[in-house]
This record gives sequence, C-alpha cells and structure tokens, in this order.
Amino acid sequence: MPKFTSPKLAREVVVRDPVHGYIHLETQVVLDVVRSKEFQRMRRIKQLGPTAFVFPGATHTRFEHNLGVYELARRISNLFTDKYPSQVPGDGLWNSDENLLVQCAGLLHDIGHGPYSHTFEHLFGTNHEKIGQMIITDPSTEVNQALRQVSPSFPEAVASVIAKTYNNPQVVKMISSQADADRMDYLLRDAYFTGASYGEFDLDRVFRVIRPYKDGICFTANGMHAVEDYIVSRYQMYQQIYYHRVNRSMEVILHHLLERAQLLYQKGELEVTPSLAHFLAGDWTLDDYLKMDDGVMETNFSMWTQSKDPILADLASRYLFRKPLASVKIDEESKGLIPKLKRLIKQAGFNPDYYTDVNSAYDEPYDAYKPTGKNANSQIEIMQDDGSLIELSHLSPLVKALNGTLQGDERFFFPTAMLSRGDETQLFDAIYEEFQKYIKNGSLHYLRRPSKKNK
Amino acid sequence: MPKFTSPKLAREVVVRDPVHGYIHLETQVVLDVVRSKEFQRMRRIKQLGPTAFVFPGATHTRFEHNLGVYELARRISNLFTDKYPSQVPGDGLWNSDENLLVQCAGLLHDIGHGPYSHTFEHLFGTNHEKIGQMIITDPSTEVNQALRQVSPSFPEAVASVIAKTYNNPQVVKMISSQADADRMDYLLRDAYFTGASYGEFDLDRVFRVIRPYKDGICFTANGMHAVEDYIVSRYQMYQQIYYHRVNRSMEVILHHLLERAQLLYQKGELEVTPSLAHFLAGDWTLDDYLKMDDGVMETNFSMWTQSKDPILADLASRYLFRKPLASVKIDEESKGLIPKLKRLIKQAGFNPDYYTDVNSAYDEPYDAYKPTGKNANSQIEIMQDDGSLIELSHLSPLVKALNGTLQGDERFFFPTAMLSRGDETQLFDAIYEEFQKYIKNGSLHYLRRPSKKNK
Amino acid sequence: MPKFTSPKLAREVVVRDPVHGYIHLETQVVLDVVRSKEFQRMRRIKQLGPTAFVFPGATHTRFEHNLGVYELARRISNLFTDKYPSQVPGDGLWNSDENLLVQCAGLLHDIGHGPYSHTFEHLFGTNHEKIGQMIITDPSTEVNQALRQVSPSFPEAVASVIAKTYNNPQVVKMISSQADADRMDYLLRDAYFTGASYGEFDLDRVFRVIRPYKDGICFTANGMHAVEDYIVSRYQMYQQIYYHRVNRSMEVILHHLLERAQLLYQKGELEVTPSLAHFLAGDWTLDDYLKMDDGVMETNFSMWTQSKDPILADLASRYLFRKPLASVKIDEESKGLIPKLKRLIKQAGFNPDYYTDVNSAYDEPYDAYKPTGKNANSQIEIMQDDGSLIELSHLSPLVKALNGTLQGDERFFFPTAMLSRGDETQLFDAIYEEFQKYIKNGSLHYLRRPSKKNK
Amino acid sequence: MPKFTSPKLAREVVVRDPVHGYIHLETQVVLDVVRSKEFQRMRRIKQLGPTAFVFPGATHTRFEHNLGVYELARRISNLFTDKYPSQVPGDGLWNSDENLLVQCAGLLHDIGHGPYSHTFEHLFGTNHEKIGQMIITDPSTEVNQALRQVSPSFPEAVASVIAKTYNNPQVVKMISSQADADRMDYLLRDAYFTGASYGEFDLDRVFRVIRPYKDGICFTANGMHAVEDYIVSRYQMYQQIYYHRVNRSMEVILHHLLERAQLLYQKGELEVTPSLAHFLAGDWTLDDYLKMDDGVMETNFSMWTQSKDPILADLASRYLFRKPLASVKIDEESKGLIPKLKRLIKQAGFNPDYYTDVNSAYDEPYDAYKPTGKNANSQIEIMQDDGSLIELSHLSPLVKALNGTLQGDERFFFPTAMLSRGDETQLFDAIYEEFQKYIKNGSLHYLRRPSKKNK
Repeated sequence: MPKFTSPKLAREVVVRDPVHGYIHLETQVVLDVVRSKEFQRMRRIKQLGPTAFVFPGATHTRFEHNLGVYELARRISNLFTDKYPSQVPGDGLWNSDENLLVQCAGLLHDIGHGPYSHTFEHLFGTNHEKIGQMIITDPSTEVNQALRQVSPSFPEAVASVIAKTYNNPQVVKMISSQADADRMDYLLRDAYFTGASYGEFDLDRVFRVIRPYKDGICFTANGMHAVEDYIVSRYQMYQQIYYHRVNRSMEVILHHLLERAQLLYQKGELEVTPSLAHFLAGDWTLDDYLKMDDGVMETNFSMWTQSKDPILADLASRYLFRKPLASVKIDEESKGLIPKLKRLIKQAGFNPDYYTDVNSAYDEPYDAYKPTGKNANSQIEIMQDDGSLIELSHLSPLVKALNGTLQGDERFFFPTAMLSRGDETQLFDAIYEEFQKYIKNGSLHYLRRPSKKNK
Repeated sequence: MPKFTSPKLAREVVVRDPVHGYIHLETQVVLDVVRSKEFQRMRRIKQLGPTAFVFPGATHTRFEHNLGVYELARRISNLFTDKYPSQVPGDGLWNSDENLLVQCAGLLHDIGHGPYSHTFEHLFGTNHEKIGQMIITDPSTEVNQALRQVSPSFPEAVASVIAKTYNNPQVVKMISSQADADRMDYLLRDAYFTGASYGEFDLDRVFRVIRPYKDGICFTANGMHAVEDYIVSRYQMYQQIYYHRVNRSMEVILHHLLERAQLLYQKGELEVTPSLAHFLAGDWTLDDYLKMDDGVMETNFSMWTQSKDPILADLASRYLFRKPLASVKIDEESKGLIPKLKRLIKQAGFNPDYYTDVNSAYDEPYDAYKPTGKNANSQIEIMQDDGSLIELSHLSPLVKALNGTLQGDERFFFPTAMLSRGDETQLFDAIYEEFQKYIKNGSLHYLRRPSKKNK
Repeated sequence: MPKFTSPKLAREVVVRDPVHGYIHLETQVVLDVVRSKEFQRMRRIKQLGPTAFVFPGATHTRFEHNLGVYELARRISNLFTDKYPSQVPGDGLWNSDENLLVQCAGLLHDIGHGPYSHTFEHLFGTNHEKIGQMIITDPSTEVNQALRQVSPSFPEAVASVIAKTYNNPQVVKMISSQADADRMDYLLRDAYFTGASYGEFDLDRVFRVIRPYKDGICFTANGMHAVEDYIVSRYQMYQQIYYHRVNRSMEVILHHLLERAQLLYQKGELEVTPSLAHFLAGDWTLDDYLKMDDGVMETNFSMWTQSKDPILADLASRYLFRKPLASVKIDEESKGLIPKLKRLIKQAGFNPDYYTDVNSAYDEPYDAYKPTGKNANSQIEIMQDDGSLIELSHLSPLVKALNGTLQGDERFFFPTAMLSRGDETQLFDAIYEEFQKYIKNGSLHYLRRPSKKNK
Repeated sequence: MPKFTSPKLAREVVVRDPVHGYIHLETQVVLDVVRSKEFQRMRRIKQLGPTAFVFPGATHTRFEHNLGVYELARRISNLFTDKYPSQVPGDGLWNSDENLLVQCAGLLHDIGHGPYSHTFEHLFGTNHEKIGQMIITDPSTEVNQALRQVSPSFPEAVASVIAKTYNNPQVVKMISSQADADRMDYLLRDAYFTGASYGEFDLDRVFRVIRPYKDGICFTANGMHAVEDYIVSRYQMYQQIYYHRVNRSMEVILHHLLERAQLLYQKGELEVTPSLAHFLAGDWTLDDYLKMDDGVMETNFSMWTQSKDPILADLASRYLFRKPLASVKIDEESKGLIPKLKRLIKQAGFNPDYYTDVNSAYDEPYDAYKPTGKNANSQIEIMQDDGSLIELSHLSPLVKALNGTLQGDERFFFPTAMLSRGDETQLFDAIYEEFQKYIKNGSLHYLRRPSKKNK
C-alpha cells in the first residue's frame, strides 16, 4: 500500500465551528477539496432537511457536518498515532500512513448528498452513495483534481474507504460503524443546532478510551459507560428529533408534492427550472445533480404555489409555509381502520392519495450481531486489561435492552381539518365527529370499551 | 389608549430554541402571526447573509431571530408586570396593558427584511422598514389578518411601535434602543451560531436589573457591570464577526454581481427568474418582494455561472463557491495609492470596476448623546437608590472609552491573484511584485523607510 | 389545614448559583432560615464527602444543595400555581396555599446531615433524619425560631413533609420520590462540580411536562423521553461517580480510622477535640452535633497523624493525604478466596482488620413497584391525553431494563502494596506474586483455565 | 543549562476537571509531586477564602488551581514545541528542553499558600512566596524528594522560575506575567465556580494566537481581540467578585477576630489548638505552617464562639455564621466624616476598633509600562506579520482605557445595626437616624444640598 501524503500548509487554516471549536485544515489537499465547487455546494443543503420546520435552529448544512467528520477523523488518527503507533504490521495498532486517507474519507463521506436525499432517491432513482463515488473518481470534478495531487490512485483509495472495500478495517470503521466519526459528529451537531441537550455525550471521554485493534476500532474497559451514554444519546435523538411526527409529516407532504409534479410534468403542465426538469424527465447528468440544492427546490415550490393545479399549488404552499398534516399512531390491528378513515377524508373534500399516508420510522439503536447490511459486523467491543474483547451489550444493561430492537412507531397522516370541532359552516361536522371517534390518546383504536391496559 | 388582548391558548405552543430554551407562544394572535405566509417566509432568509461563508455555523435565519425578540419582549414585559406594575398613570412604572403590543412589535420588527437586505436596498431602492410597515398594515397580508383579530387598530399600533412613533417610550425602547430586545437577541444568537463566545453576556443578570422609568427602560445601580459587559460584547461582535474582512469581501462581490446583472438586464442579455426580473426592471410589487429569498437569489446566481458574459459568470461563481477578494487596510493618506493599484490590477487582466472596491465598516459601539438618528435619545441610564439616573459612560471606564467613537476600518478589496508569488507562467510576476511593495502588515503604505511607530 | 404565609421581602434577596442561575429568597421566613446558625453550618459539610478525592471539583457543600432544592421547589410550586391551580378540593390540581410549606421543606430536607454522615451514623448511632426533625422542631434552634414566625404549628408541618407523614401527597412527593426536587438538584449539581456531563438532563423540559395529580406528581405524555433521560442520568451518576472504587476506598479508610480511634479512646489513648470526644464517649447532645463539620474531623485526623499508635497514625495520614486502598471486583463464588488473601496480606505486614474490607455498592435506578421502604409508592406515572396514567417502565425500554434491578458491584479492598512487582528489598515479592495470581481484568478469580465467557 | 526529564508514565494518569476537561499527569515526577503531603494539603485551602460566603459555589481549592496552571503550562509548552521549535539558540523560539521545568513551576507556583493567606501574612508575618521556596528546596519535604528524582539541581531551578530569577524569560513569563497560565486558570476557574459568566474568555482562541518571542510570550496580530477580551474579563472579575463588598466585609471581620485572638493569647486568655498557637506565639516552624488549613482555623473559631470574651465570641460567630458588616463608599473628602461616625457607632454600643474599618480595593487591570514591582516588564505585545511588536494598549481602545488606571473603591465598614429603622426598643433610634443622614446612594456624603452630579 503506498503512503499518501500532502504538504502541510505553511500557515494552517482554521474554521471556527461551534461544535468542535476549530476545524484544522492542515494540508494542501484538504484545503483544496474544501475549496472545490462540489464541496462548497453543500453549504446550500441542510443536514436535516425539513427538521428545521420543527426545530428552527436546525438550519445547519452538510458542509459543516462533512468538515466535522473530517475534524474528528483527524483528531482520532492523530491520537492513535501518538498513543497506539504500530511497530510491526499486523500488531493491531495504528499505522500513521493511513492518516491522510482516513481524513479525506471523512471529509468526503457525504459528498454525494443532494437536497432532501431520501425523498429524491425514492422518486428519481438517484443514489447518493454512487454519486459520491463519481464525484470523487470522475476526473472532471474539482474534488478529483484536488485529490489527484496526492497520487493518481488516491481518489480510488478514498472512494474505497467510503465504499467499505478498503482492506484496513480500522480505516473503514473510523468512518462507518456503530461508533464512527460520522455518527459522533452528527449527534453532537444536530443536538447543538436543535437545542436538544439529550443528544450530547462526552466526546472528551470517548477520545480517552477509543483505540485501534486488529479488526477495527474498540474502547478500553474503563470507557464502557462513556460508550453506553453515546448509544443512549443516539437512541434519544432518533426518537425525539429525527422521528418527530411533524418532521415526518413535512416529508410526507414533500413526497406527495414531487409525485404530483412528476405527473403534471408528464402531462406537460408544469412550470419548472431547467435543472429540476431533467430529474422529472429522467435524463439527468452529474452536472444537473450538482446544481440541485435546497434553494432551487424551494424556488420551484414557490412557482408552483401559483399553479392552476389546485393539489400542486396547495401542497407547495403547505410545504413552503409549514402547514403539516396531523397524525395518529397505528399498529397492525388498527391499520384495518385506514380504508374507512380514507373514505371519511374523501367525503370531507381531500384526495386521499395526496393528503394521507402511512409512514413508519423505526431505528435499531444498536445491534450486537449484524452479519450483513449497512452496519455489518460493526458491533462495539470493549477491550479488557488482558486484551480480550467483550461486546458492549454484555456489559451494559441499557445497551442490552436496546440491542437488536426496533424503536419508533408507525403513523397515519391526514389533514388537520379532520380534527376540527364546531366549524363555522358546520358543513363537515358530522364527518369530523365520526372520524375523531377512532382516536384516543394519540392512537388509532377500534370502537370498543377502552381496555384497562395499565393499573 | 385601548387595551389590546388576545385569548390565551388552551394549550400553550412552545418552540425549542437553542438560545432561549423555549419560545412560548401563549396567545392566539401570536400563533397566527407566526403561522402566516409572510412570517414563515423568513425561514428562507439567513440572519447574517454571507457571514456563513466565514463562520459556517451562521446559517440561522430571520425567523428564529424574530421569535427570539418576541420571547425577550415577552419575558421583560412579564417581569415588569410582576415587579414594577404601574399604580397611577405617569408613575414611571409598567402598564401591563402594553404587554401584547410590545410582544407583537418584537415579533414583527424585522418582517420587512428580504435576502441580502443591505445590498438589495442599495441597488433596487427597496426599504425594509417601509415594507415592514406595509406587511403589517396592508389588509391583504396574513400578518395583518392575524393582527386584526385583536382590534382593527392593532396593526397600526404595532407598526407605530416599530416606527418609534408610538407614544409610550417604554414600549418603543424595549424594541429599539441601545439596550433593546432586538440587540440582546441577535448578539446571543449570532454568538451561538458562529461559535463566538465573546458575544455572550449574562442575560439572567441583565433581567435582574432592567426596569422601566418614565422615559423608557433603564437599569438599577447594582447592574452597571452587567450592562457594561453587554456593551463590550456588542463591540466585540462588530469588530470580529460583522466586520470580518472576508464577510465584507463577499458583500463586495455580491454588490458587483448584481450591478453587472442590472447592466446586462437593461441590455436584454440576462436570464433571470420572473420574481427577480421585476426588481431589475424596477417594477416590483409587495407580492414580488415576498417571493424573494436566499434560495431564489442563489438559483439565479447558479444560472448566471453559465452566462456568456465572463464577468457575470465569474462573479456568480465566486459568490456561490466562496472565492473572496483579498483586502488591505487603508487610511486617508494611503488612499492616494489606490488609482495606482487599480492600474496594476487592470494590467494583470481584471476590470477594476468589478474586481476592486473600497469598503468602510465603522460602528459606534455606544453613544451617550444622540439627539437625532436611528438610536436618538437612547443612551443607557443607571438608576441610583434614590431614583436619580446616571448615564452609563459616567460609571464605566470601558463604555467611556467607546462612547461616541467609531470602531472599525476601511479596506481596499482586490483579486487575491495580486498577492501571488512565483506564478508558473511568470506572465504577471513583475506586476504582482510591484503591487505587493505597497503592502505591509496588512495595510497599504507609501514606499518609504518604515517609521518606528512603536517601541 | 391553615394557610401558611410569610411577608414577601420588600427587596428580594438573590444568591448566584452556577447550577440554577439565581436562587430567589423571596420571603422573610426563608431568608431567616438561611441566615440561621444551623443552616450556615452546612457550608462546612461537603455534599459528597470523600468524592472530592477522585473528582477534585466536587468541593460543593450541603449548603448549596439545600438552597438548590428550595429553588426547584419554589419554581415547581409557582409553575403549578400558574398552570394547574386547584378549583375545588380534591380535583387533583395544586393548591397554592402549600407553596411556602413545600419551599421550606425543600430548604430543610437535609438539615440533619453532619460530616461523613454515612460513616458517622454507622459508628456513632446518629441519625440524620431524626436530628433534622429536632433541628426543625426544637425551640432552641434558630431554624425553629425562624419558622415559628409563620405560625406555631409551621415547624411541625415542615417536619411532617420531610418525614412523609404530611397528608397531601403532592407536597410530600415534590420533596421525596423517584423524581423529586432533591434528586433533580443533586444530579445536576454533582454533575456540574465533578465535571461529569452525563449527569446532566434537560431540566427546562422536565419543567414543561411535570404536573400534579391526585396522588402526587406526574408527567404529561409528551414528556416521557425527558423523564427517561433523567432516570438514565441518575443511573450513570451512581455507576460512575457515587460508586467510584477510589471514592469507596476512601470511605473504607475513614471507617477503619474512626473504628481505631474509638478503640483507643476507650483505652484512654486518644488525643481528640472536645466536640468529637462526646461521640466517641457516646454522650453527645444536639449542640455537639451542630459543632461537627468536615474541618473539625480533619483537624482531629491531623493530630492523629502524630499518634503513637501506628495504625491510627497511618490511617489518618492515608485519609488526609489520599492514599487509597486498591480493590478488585468479587462475586459470590470468588468471595471464597478472601480468607486466603487476608492471610497473604497479613504475611506482608498489614493488619487485615484495618487494611482490608468488603464493600458492596448497589443502587436500584428505578422501581415501578415499591409498597414499602424509603421510596415507597413513588413510581413515575405518565399522564395520557385522557387523564389516565401509565407507569414509566411500560413506555420506556431503557427504564424497563433498569426497573427493579440492582446496578453496581461488590469489591474487596486491600493495600496497593500487594500489587507491587519487583520491590527493591524483594522481601515480600513471593507473597505479592502469589496474591496477584488471583486477579484478572480487575476481578478476583479462582485459579483455572480462563473460561471463554464471550465470543 | 541541563536538560530536565522524567520518565513518561506507562499509563498516563488523568484527573477530571470541570474547567479543562482533563488534567494529564504524564510524567513520574509530576505524579509524585501531586501525591506529596504538601500538595495534597492544598485540598483543604479554598482558592478564594471567604468569597464562598457571597458566591456559595466558590468552594474550589488551591489544589485544583495548581493542577489547572500545570495543565495550561503543559498545553502551551507542547503547543510551542509543535509550532515554534527553536532551531538555534537565541532565535526567539521555544526550546522543548524547558517543558518539564515550566510544567513543574506551574504546578508548584502557589504551594506556599496557607489558609486566608492575605490576613495571615499581615498578622503573623508569614510570606507565602518564601514558604513556597522552602517547600520546594528543603530536603525534608515530599515535594523536594519528588523533584530530586529529575536531578539534584531541579528543585532550585523550579524555585528560580517561580522567583522570576530563572534566565529564560519565556519560561518565567509563561508562569508570571500579565497574560500567564496562572491568571488564565484562575479567571476561568473562579468564573466557573462562582457562576460569573463574565469571567470567561475564549481560551481556545488565546491558544491559537499565543507564541514565544525573544523576551517572553506574545500574541499574533489576528489575536488582538482575544487578548483584549481576556483583559476585560479580568477587570470584570476583580470588580464583581474579588472586590465584592460582602467578601471584603468578611475579610475585615476575620482580621479583627485574629487581632483579638492575638491580644487574648498574649494575656493567656485564649483556648487554641497547638498548631495555631505557634503563630500567635510567633514561634512557628514550616511543619506548623503545613498543618494549617481552613478546617483548623474554623475549628478554633468554633471554640472561640464559647469564649468569655464577648468581642472574640461575637466576631467568631459573625465569621462562622456569616454576619457581615455593612459598608459605604468613601472618598478623600468624605473620609473626614469617619471620626464622627465612629463616635455614633460607639454610642450605639460597638467598639469601633473591632466593628469598623476602612478598606480599599484597587486593581490595575493592565499596565503597559511597569519597570518595577510584581508584574515588572510584563506588558502584552502583539506581533505583526513582519515580526515587529506593538504593545496591546496601542491597538485596543478598551485596554487603552484601563491601562495604568486603578479600578475599585474604598469603603467604610460598620455594624448593619446602624442602618436599622424603627427598632422595637427605640433605644438607639436617634443615633441610627443621625448616622443614616450621611449616606446617600451607597456613599458617604457631608450634609448639604445634593449636588447635580449628572444631567
């Protein structure tokens, strides 16, 4: 494996960051990647998409997050270089030749994201991982040109770390695992910008106890509680921020809005900016993709509020001006009521295809055994004094409780009007009243004597 | 004066805010204003415009700031209601009938802002204060409709507080003075999002010592140092954040970019979205104004990067992808060198009209005597035990030092290329070298033996 | 029940507190209690005793904690008065007539504590709860005199709240339950002073969701995660701070030191200050108790370092100058090894009665069902929209995991010398080596092939 | 100059610190110094003495502060080693051979302090600087034994840095100057524990800009505002915390209490512990000094509350139970009134020798020119791009305003009874009334028509 290096800048550039204090851009290649068009473009893509509708402070972008992951990778790799330098290959310690590589992989791990990635991918078949690989390896990009300074094979090496095909698991897992620089940054950053203090964990302490081992990254025995706390913080952020019902409601609206736009585009009835048009037409290029950002999307939505199509206009307006749908929790049993509810909603004047949805949001806070999938084999190991490893859920009752479980809920979304009482016109009052009979304590229920669930 | 009231919400709505913990929306009118289109639109306008290019965390918007000013006005007016309730008119204490009014004025004090207000106003003759008054008083807006619930005269009353023509100076000065809810919020908020801890001051303590008096708002004697600290924080934020040279450089680029666009538009050579076109044409309406936001502007800039006009394309690209101009400090004497420098810049291939500028940024951190102007008569008074007032600069050596002074600098902006050394082509090396001779320690200087300024 | 009131102070007194910002002393009775000798004495008793030997910042005292509990009781009772005022007796809402009572109970809930309460009670038969009742109800104390201002029955009422015999469970549980003002203050305060950020939880949010109900205090449904987070923080503080092995080691030394002092006192061989002598003699009065504080104890320890009794002198020196014992985890099985280890320790020259100990520290982080005992019937209830209650562990997987479990460990303490390797004199090397064979990964083990516990 | 080194610990010991996160004890010598009796003793001496009577959180001790100064010296010396390594002697850069020396000097810079140093030194002729030198250089101390591990000359070298006679001004000024590790630590630490946020400054940023130069330590040009902010924080801490009138009042009481004790001791009428007796007798040794701590003092005060001498008993009780004297500001003119006031105080039954005092507290926040004295030649220099230096007050208007000035006040202290109104007995009412005539807005004034000082 070649050693990748880049000249240290005569005068290190620092970026003030409210989460990590300073981001230190030490090398020419890192500075050049940050200054590239493709990287700067991330300033215009919010990290959490519609979450700012619920937590208004959450306007932070993928730009800061990528810098933050770089900074954590930089600090961890420097720390490993100091405390755990490899003496002989295969000794399970850290080879400082990997420092630049892991830092660049951290910096670029999310470079493929566009606006509202989740919705976008679903509707237009984009794939942020593949696009990220292209941005890194395509010679036409400024990112690629910056990376090639290091060596012609450097872009491929960076891409392989992000793709998890690189052959040193320590490097791969510093960027992608159940305790990686990516998650550490986004939990702290999202907590800071939303104001959700429960997302904070003790990074200083995690840094005290993190260490390399043969198959990746682990933590020393005295750090069990620090890692436990991090897993709990992650769980709290998912339940309270990422899966917030209003957040999901805005995503539902967004999805239906773009579906409607697609339909109208096919009928030739949509006004749209050229860059977005290519996605609706299905003939987009990387160049089109790189032109997409939150502002372009909102500029289109703003035009659509004037559309003659009432559904498009209304959904666009709902999204731009934050008019979420209401929702109730559902389960396998109560789902059976949905067709009935949709009929009532239709009677009240709403097209159920666009004004209702079922959305489930479940997260696996931690999994001790993942032979396959995105987080395959990334369980968290705690190293004992004699060097043996114990998997985290054997030591922590909290992690054991979360291990392998799915946390979250499934919800049925519908117009808030359905929850009205005593409307002026009284037009739909009977329908509303009928609808509301099925809702109790925020959940959908068949009509029956309430069971004594508790006490 | 009528008493303005709005029904308390059966269930108070709160908004999580990283700066103030929670924003409490207690009344129907406040909730309805927040839900209006015109207010929601502020989510798409960054509070600090291009500052995020220098401090990447500064992506917060005017939406949060307006909520924050409301929250501070709410807390201060509630505190005055508890601690300093007026018994008889003219006793210099607080009349709780003003609470709703001052809260709504806080909420709407910046509603007239559009994207990049400063540059926009300069080029297109918009005026955010007048537009704000329109949004509040024009019956077509959702803001006005929300306010009219309270009383037909309520919108005018709110507008008069913001315009400082309302007849109770306590109400006016809680929103606009040298120590008002507006400044308190933006200092804390901008400090939080930039990560600049020096902008923080002790809000809890300011709240302990703030009180009403006959002519406005003052502070009790034991709070002198808390207020002094606030003035110093304000000074620090201006010098270090708002007047940061790169921030100003991006504003210079923005200004020239829009100037160039205007020229090309007049020649019919500009591709532009309809909403922005009305500004370039000079026939914009309130409706057009309300459609403008950061995303629309950037969508246009993105189109312009493809323009056939090389200056437009380059400036658009410089703005979007953060390629600032360099700058040096200048003074009255060294200004004389600018024509010479512009000639060198032209020789190096840049049009000085678009690639250079002189920009001065001076702030008056505090003024004890302002008979006229924006902050007229808003000096800060400290109330002694016997009720007499002493103006702040008589008590604080720091405020005395800043009182009436202008702090800041004047800078000459130019392409960073002029600072190159040893270019590959060597084409302009002699020009660059000549240019650089005039720069020393970041300032412009005539060529001469360096004077012994110090030591 | 009479209504208890105290005149509001013309000028509220505030105390700056790094945890809660300000403590507001609003009434004459509260101010007078705080100024009493018995209350001021708590300034000289550390909240966490020997914990400062491990976390040096933890020098905070019972004085601040008692003020903090008062402040939280004040805020919660004011909040209940605003948001949940009782209309008719028995409606399960809050009667503001209880405000002063609950505040004074918060202020005085720990007034009976002396230095190193735990050890003291064990050795000298003191009881901080009974002594607290005496301080409140005995007419000779300044605390009692202050309380009697309110009414002759007020001291008894305050004492009954602390004793949990008062007949309004809302008042009792605000001070003593699994989610009371006492715990909320000590978790936040101990986290702040130790620097253990994992002890922090979102107090603002807890205040948003806390509410009274017929049988006590509960939380609204939207606050489940805030309460869950608080339970997890409590668990973390116990495991990481309160049960820290070095902390427990210092307590073991303290215990043996006082035991030894007692023995020597009985033999007439101890130099001791008069106040402490009464405890060793077993004839102490309340007046003696009120003279005890950390400084008096340490003054005695300092004298004892010069004692002719080598065990007393050594233990006193170990305590004062922080020379902890070492320890290993033990379990039911490995306990069988302790006699053998004690023999080795004796051979190495240490008296096992004074230089070894078994100490177990187990906490029940949460219990959903406690019909008896200190926290009887104080499970945490979450109120649904329709007013029904669900006990917390039914909603939270984390609380469910902790519910009814004991978390902690049992340890065997012994002189650190036993862990030496290669001593200069080599005198005891064989003994040390033998001893160390039984220790692996910080636990005691029988000699055998290590079992494959994991993986 | 010999190079001083100490073996790195195989396993670094860290101490959790709420101010700096972790204190890293990297070397054997540092660990051994920390574990010495003389160092551990500082756990029992509060950093701010009676300040905890005003800011109850301020219970932190000299132990943590000394560790904190060590940690800052460690970080700064490591940073200099990385960023500014000396290549040739005399190049004005940092020689890493000094690292261990400057760290130990930081650790021990305050080792000579006893309880209430200021008062103690005044009354008993102790001198914490000389005693500190003794503790470091006397072969009988554990501190000295620990240091001698490094080299026989190491203790003298450490002592010379603290005494400012060491020949490398960079080393001396890192520990003692107007911007040294000592001040940086105590400002941040005292701010944290008192809760005074205005004492905070941006340490991260100061570390970005601090650098060595030939004659000491300076700051780079881009850091002017960070240093300015630090000077302002220092000013705020002095005015608001260290010089708080109640703090000074408690010091006045302490002083008079010990004076009275001295008098009674000489008459043979004082009960006193042996260690303190030696100070009252004037025959104390280093060993006696090392036994003194806050607890010993308070144990004596507690005994004295039972004294037959009413003044001793009352003053001891006032100190222990926080009964401060009242005070008013005085100036050169109003001082003339003091004899008259003392007569009134005497008439009201108080001995003015023990119940009144004049106390002045003035600090010089910054001095650009100090040829002599404690902070001689330690003005703060800002290094320009070309290496030239500009003294701070030439660049900062705030520092210029404070430069060379004395900030603070002079106060007359007297019994709070003198401020009574309408006493029950009415015995002294006329005297009180007469007394109070001379006080206005917290200052002493001759009787006359109030001048129109302001407005």
